[in-house]
Amino acid sequence: MKFEVTILGSSSATPIFNRNPTSQALNINERLYLIDCGEGTQQQMLRFDIKASRIDYIFISHLHGDHYLGLVGLLSSLHLNGRTKPLHIFCPAPLKEIIDLQFKYSETTIQYPLEYTFIDPTQPTKLVDNQDIIIESIPLDHRIPCTGFLFRQKKRLRKLIKDKIETIDIPVEYYSRLKKGEDFTDSNGKLYKNDELTLDSERPKAYAYCSDTLFNEAYFNQISGVDLLYHEATFLHNMVDRAVETHHTTALQAAEVAARVKARKLVIGHFSARYKALTELLDEARSIFSETELAIEGKTFVI
Amino acid sequence: MKFEVTILGSSSATPIFNRNPTSQALNINERLYLIDCGEGTQQQMLRFDIKASRIDYIFISHLHGDHYLGLVGLLSSLHLNGRTKPLHIFCPAPLKEIIDLQFKYSETTIQYPLEYTFIDPTQPTKLVDNQDIIIESIPLDHRIPCTGFLFRQKKRLRKLIKDKIETIDIPVEYYSRLKKGEDFTDSNGKLYKNDELTLDSERPKAYAYCSDTLFNEAYFNQISGVDLLYHEATFLHNMVDRAVETHHTTALQAAEVAARVKARKLVIGHFSARYKALTELLDEARSIFSETELAIEGKTFVI
Repeated sequence: MKFEVTILGSSSATPIFNRNPTSQALNINERLYLIDCGEGTQQQMLRFDIKASRIDYIFISHLHGDHYLGLVGLLSSLHLNGRTKPLHIFCPAPLKEIIDLQFKYSETTIQYPLEYTFIDPTQPTKLVDNQDIIIESIPLDHRIPCTGFLFRQKKRLRKLIKDKIETIDIPVEYYSRLKKGEDFTDSNGKLYKNDELTLDSERPKAYAYCSDTLFNEAYFNQISGVDLLYHEATFLHNMVDRAVETHHTTALQAAEVAARVKARKLVIGHFSARYKALTELLDEARSIFSETELAIEGKTFVI
Repeated sequence: MKFEVTILGSSSATPIFNRNPTSQALNINERLYLIDCGEGTQQQMLRFDIKASRIDYIFISHLHGDHYLGLVGLLSSLHLNGRTKPLHIFCPAPLKEIIDLQFKYSETTIQYPLEYTFIDPTQPTKLVDNQDIIIESIPLDHRIPCTGFLFRQKKRLRKLIKDKIETIDIPVEYYSRLKKGEDFTDSNGKLYKNDELTLDSERPKAYAYCSDTLFNEAYFNQISGVDLLYHEATFLHNMVDRAVETHHTTALQAAEVAARVKARKLVIGHFSARYKALTELLDEARSIFSETELAIEGKTFVI
């Protein structure tokens, strides 16, 4: 099952040339989920061939402009392009007021159902639970209410060992029970243990998105053991005072989070515009968590 | 005196790859004026080396998102980059409400004076009158209140003919009177006619920005004889019904406007996303107004 994230924007509040404000597109079993939607996200989707029409869920972490200013334009384009299927937005409650006001003055009546779920930023909450994935909010510690998002794949059914199955007379109707782990006894009373007939499905993977936040142990437990951790790393650690003041994280701290929660891999992003090159940020994080990569526009990470 | 316009965005509501929503930067005697500010305008300024910090005036034609969704991000970046000098925004009144609401929820207090002038969309109004330029609003005919903008250079002072002046004993204090057109009589009573001593300054130029609008004679008189006319041309004329329905103009109609108002040059823009190539739009306009160019991102037109 496909489970991958494409970086659409990696800059913090002030954009720099070729670094866009935050946005990420997740492809989970060919369904698209958008996390944050900074200005220019539409153009980034065009650039990296992410079909906006295929997005059904949008998650907005908080109401700093670099995380949502591309949303009204995107919603409007989907409308103009004839969307009819519902779009679900998970966001801080005031975002609806902002969107409604802008549509009021542009005299726009969106022609598809826009469904909102307002996130309680104070506690982890299950937002989505479908056949593929469970998505929870992660309360973060920023200057204004802010949540990250945790995507946990569901355990899938076991896989039939086709070559083996074909040698036994098993009714097709029984296959779904095999996939769920049941044994099979044939008409002669011969027992086949389930693990002779099926293979375990892949280990369910998890992805945690943590931006923007102060380094704070409060969210560590929830993201324990994730396969991929995206964590903001706005500054180098020599600016840790500034990071604390603005409720951001340094590259070193992001790596410490990854190490502490035993993530398999770390991607850092949300870089301050002061860093034209990102090597120092990467080196700093790798000094304590070697499996670190940079969030670069257009890069796709398989989870 | 420099008087030129750089195209930052040329697309209509739905962006396409490499065509950004509407924005233009005017350089008038090394002062920058921004017209409209579609999403991504900041990135476009970075791309084309337009220094946002040098902008003192922003003009917003109307409240369709493709003309202003980049503004809050721009205002925020100027704030984060330490701007202290005032910024003047000329816009429809509700824009302030939209901006204030977004800054309220991002808990942003802009550290420079943000001065608003709300435009009356029903009649031409003088918005700016400084040493270089007079700027007026142009009432247009769109689905929601919308104005264009007319930039008329002021007539400059006459230029001293240095070689001639140096042969005569003229007090330096008298130079400013010569520049204004006065004659000079020397101590022997000899009269020098002004045109012996000075040259006329360049003819003042004018630029009209007309987007978005239905083809409508009401604004023709105001923009009569402009040196450069930017006019929206959302559709080819085979879609004139759609143009009328959505209160837009076809390429043919834009050219007709240019011909009727005796513009010296026409630039068409605000292209529908349906036109991947723009040749047909250009050819159609040139069929009746040969001095037509396309608004292409990054292109600068000297007025």
